[in-house]
Amino acid sequence: MADAAQAKLRIIPLGGVDEFGKNITVVEYGDDIIVVDCGSIFPEADMLGVDLVIPDVSYLIKNREKIRGMFITHGHEDHIGATPYVLRQVPVPIYGTKLTLALVDLKLKEHRLPGVQLNVIKPGDMVEAGCFSVRFIHVNHSIADAVALAITSPAGTVVFSGDFKIDYTPIKSDVTDLATFASLGQQGVLAFLCDSTNVERKGYTMSETRISQTFIDQFQQAKGRVFVAMFASNIHRVQMVVDSAALFGRKVCFVGRSMVNVSRVAMSIGELVIPPDNLVDIDDLSNYADEEILIVTTGSQGEAMAGLTRMAYGEHRKLQIKPTDMVIISASPIPGNEKPIARVINQLYRCGANVIYGQIAEVHVSGHACQEELKLLHVLLRPKYFVPIHGDYSKLWQHAELAESVGTPSQNIVIPERGQIIEMSENSLSITGIVPTGGVLVDGLGIGDVGNVVLRDRKHLSEDGLIIVVMAIERDTGTLVSGPDIVSRGFVYVRESEDIIENARELTRFIIKSYENLDGSEWQTMKNRIKDELHRYIFEKIKRNPMILPIIMEI
Amino acid sequence: MADAAQAKLRIIPLGGVDEFGKNITVVEYGDDIIVVDCGSIFPEADMLGVDLVIPDVSYLIKNREKIRGMFITHGHEDHIGATPYVLRQVPVPIYGTKLTLALVDLKLKEHRLPGVQLNVIKPGDMVEAGCFSVRFIHVNHSIADAVALAITSPAGTVVFSGDFKIDYTPIKSDVTDLATFASLGQQGVLAFLCDSTNVERKGYTMSETRISQTFIDQFQQAKGRVFVAMFASNIHRVQMVVDSAALFGRKVCFVGRSMVNVSRVAMSIGELVIPPDNLVDIDDLSNYADEEILIVTTGSQGEAMAGLTRMAYGEHRKLQIKPTDMVIISASPIPGNEKPIARVINQLYRCGANVIYGQIAEVHVSGHACQEELKLLHVLLRPKYFVPIHGDYSKLWQHAELAESVGTPSQNIVIPERGQIIEMSENSLSITGIVPTGGVLVDGLGIGDVGNVVLRDRKHLSEDGLIIVVMAIERDTGTLVSGPDIVSRGFVYVRESEDIIENARELTRFIIKSYENLDGSEWQTMKNRIKDELHRYIFEKIKRNPMILPIIMEI
Repeated sequence: MADAAQAKLRIIPLGGVDEFGKNITVVEYGDDIIVVDCGSIFPEADMLGVDLVIPDVSYLIKNREKIRGMFITHGHEDHIGATPYVLRQVPVPIYGTKLTLALVDLKLKEHRLPGVQLNVIKPGDMVEAGCFSVRFIHVNHSIADAVALAITSPAGTVVFSGDFKIDYTPIKSDVTDLATFASLGQQGVLAFLCDSTNVERKGYTMSETRISQTFIDQFQQAKGRVFVAMFASNIHRVQMVVDSAALFGRKVCFVGRSMVNVSRVAMSIGELVIPPDNLVDIDDLSNYADEEILIVTTGSQGEAMAGLTRMAYGEHRKLQIKPTDMVIISASPIPGNEKPIARVINQLYRCGANVIYGQIAEVHVSGHACQEELKLLHVLLRPKYFVPIHGDYSKLWQHAELAESVGTPSQNIVIPERGQIIEMSENSLSITGIVPTGGVLVDGLGIGDVGNVVLRDRKHLSEDGLIIVVMAIERDTGTLVSGPDIVSRGFVYVRESEDIIENARELTRFIIKSYENLDGSEWQTMKNRIKDELHRYIFEKIKRNPMILPIIMEI
Repeated sequence: MADAAQAKLRIIPLGGVDEFGKNITVVEYGDDIIVVDCGSIFPEADMLGVDLVIPDVSYLIKNREKIRGMFITHGHEDHIGATPYVLRQVPVPIYGTKLTLALVDLKLKEHRLPGVQLNVIKPGDMVEAGCFSVRFIHVNHSIADAVALAITSPAGTVVFSGDFKIDYTPIKSDVTDLATFASLGQQGVLAFLCDSTNVERKGYTMSETRISQTFIDQFQQAKGRVFVAMFASNIHRVQMVVDSAALFGRKVCFVGRSMVNVSRVAMSIGELVIPPDNLVDIDDLSNYADEEILIVTTGSQGEAMAGLTRMAYGEHRKLQIKPTDMVIISASPIPGNEKPIARVINQLYRCGANVIYGQIAEVHVSGHACQEELKLLHVLLRPKYFVPIHGDYSKLWQHAELAESVGTPSQNIVIPERGQIIEMSENSLSITGIVPTGGVLVDGLGIGDVGNVVLRDRKHLSEDGLIIVVMAIERDTGTLVSGPDIVSRGFVYVRESEDIIENARELTRFIIKSYENLDGSEWQTMKNRIKDELHRYIFEKIKRNPMILPIIMEI
């Protein structure tokens, strides 16, 4: 073994820093690499038409022969969402808990990607991968079967918190394995990479158990059907809701594609336990009285195609909200979703339903550690170096401050940038370079073929629409034989703005005339002049800036 | 005077119900109409390229000879934003307090609309307008000089709360005039129309004074310059910030167009009082030490063009954030602005500034009444009828529930829809019809020329871009003489997808060939077939759905 004091470990966050999502980190020692997580992120508002953003993994492709495995902390999209895309390019074995890998497997099947080696581990297990040994540590989170990782290399041990909270009264699992964190701390931790999502929040995150009383209270009052909208992956909350409803004689029906899929997977591996008698198929609901029914469904984020949204708007084939229904929205808005959620809540009120949501009752708790929980982990681990991850810059910065406040010297803290090579040993910590990173945009089946030019055009088109000016010119004589015709889309309602269109045509005709006996070499100049002058005319006239596209047909 | 028990009063909310913004309500009795407020609303996310949405006032245009005046409760955009547009169509006298009308005047000047009759009133004043007498009642709100209205007609008195809160320790003005509300209640109130913005919030809204201590604490700690970003219209908070900073020897510099304009107006009417010695022009800042400077600026909502945003990104001509600066963001996000604000906060952290915002310290309080304040007004007024306004459907519904809980029978409550004619007398309350309403979209100088077709096209273009297929066909012979050429924008990065474009061209050529000796009458059929088949090909190939625009040039 190399001298630990000299041996250098490299950590490269390829995503998940200065952003929420797309978590993926490289841990590298000598000729061995392991990858922690492989998440996707939702597109930004200005990424028009983009479905999903995945990390740029060209560094992994370049070093593919060094990669010993991919270790996944839990099954949320921001930690597994990019697996089908990345594994297609870099086929490596994956390690994770039962539920995590079952969810990865769903994804791989959807993408028809067979042959990926999925290695199920249990919390407490230790896996050897190249020079690394990786230990899985049970943590509480808003998805079951979440783990932290302790990765031991010849240079020392790196701990990844994964997404976690400390729930002293969890619904079904054990408390976050504090003993293991404490013993790691005693053995010595070189670096700690920790979730920063809730670093702004003082105190402790509430226990999941706290909201079970809210559910029981609500079920007690409910007179008709009860609908609960939530994230499908929050299996333990599903369990709690189903169990609480059973106390009042309600049977559960899962509605919505991901709710049906994930609950099925969770039941198949024993993570969700529902007596068969208590499960009702959507087609059999008519056999039950309203007060015997619990519907657990998707749509807690106001997603247009999700179960709750369709039921609220009367667009669901089999279910529709009615005045006797109680609807509980058990989630808080992901930033950016506030408006769609408000729209669905309004629509539920219009249906006459009794709507219970965050503003009205405690029906949701966060899955992420607040300040006091973060401090506890910092203090147990007493790491030499600290690297905040999972959060935008302001959160990473505040987490660095928190670490300092509990004893990590500021020179031992790195606020990482995406792609930075953070090199560390017992004696040194430095940034030694940067590797290519960034977001790869997925639009339909296209991966990476939508870039800045395409997005700029989409944005331009979306704001003021388009004017096409088309004309036919005889090559030999340079005479205009047809047009100019003007076609517009997304610009103005043409019938009410015939003047503008007619004047634009007149102006174009005038410009063309000024180029007598058009030579092919002049066409580009003429096109530019048409663009410029139409732009100026239209902006003056109506203060809009449509895309102007002159097209010359050569006859 | 008519028999009050029989006389019918009509109330028509043209906006501000089932939405946040665009507040405008018609009060009508016999041949007299008065209009309360005239607001605009921000466009929804799917109103691409739209700058502003104003109410449809065709009902006012139709009844213009009946209108006796427009009464404005306060100077926020959702109450005055549509004035230049509406007054151009319906020139009527306006009534409002000094600050309110000064802000309306700014707007009218910007829109070059002279000759509007602006009548300044004071709280306590009474104005006669047709058969109505309108009394102005002082209320606390996040803008100075806000009022409620008590409108007395032969059918009885209607009270509009306006936007309000009850602040027992306001910064500069008096407490909301509870005595007048109480005496109105004793005289008898026919109907109460009340703000519903904060109806979800239990308890009381905090006093504006509460945050002044936060500011003093922060100023005490600040070592360099202090920046405060806030709404320009919150004059009393500006006063409090300026006064608190003066205690520490700081002089104030206003930055950002609306901050400069509004503070100037507020000073000119004495609503904002700053000794000339304490005011610094942006060009003179270099004469002062950092610890003598307070910058009050715009950008609390992360607006791209606002002062704070440009200073954070180094795009401001004269000021740039540096590590010794303290930046206080004294506002909470308007729903939908969470992400832009987070981006600015991140950028401020990157600049190294000490950033103070809602998550970190109490630097903002709401301007709207919470449940207990609402109850107080309900109980003081004891109205016969209640109509909740200013809020989306779920809030109006909850406000109706609150009114019932303090004694208004449910049959005396109307949850209004936009445009409903609510007719009432001592003996009856009913909906007797509906008038045209809706949002009129303003895009550049165009008002109402962007409608559903244009928006649908913009949305389509924004999601998957555009493919233009252009060809020239000889009219007489029906032969193809040029093309088909394919031009795409916002679809794919063409250099990397030459195959798709080339195959699309081939497919089009094949379709054209199948129409031998093209007759002009067949062109439309052929165009449709090109659209359909290209659509199918491209969707299969890449799961995208660009707009396909076949254009035939006739030679």
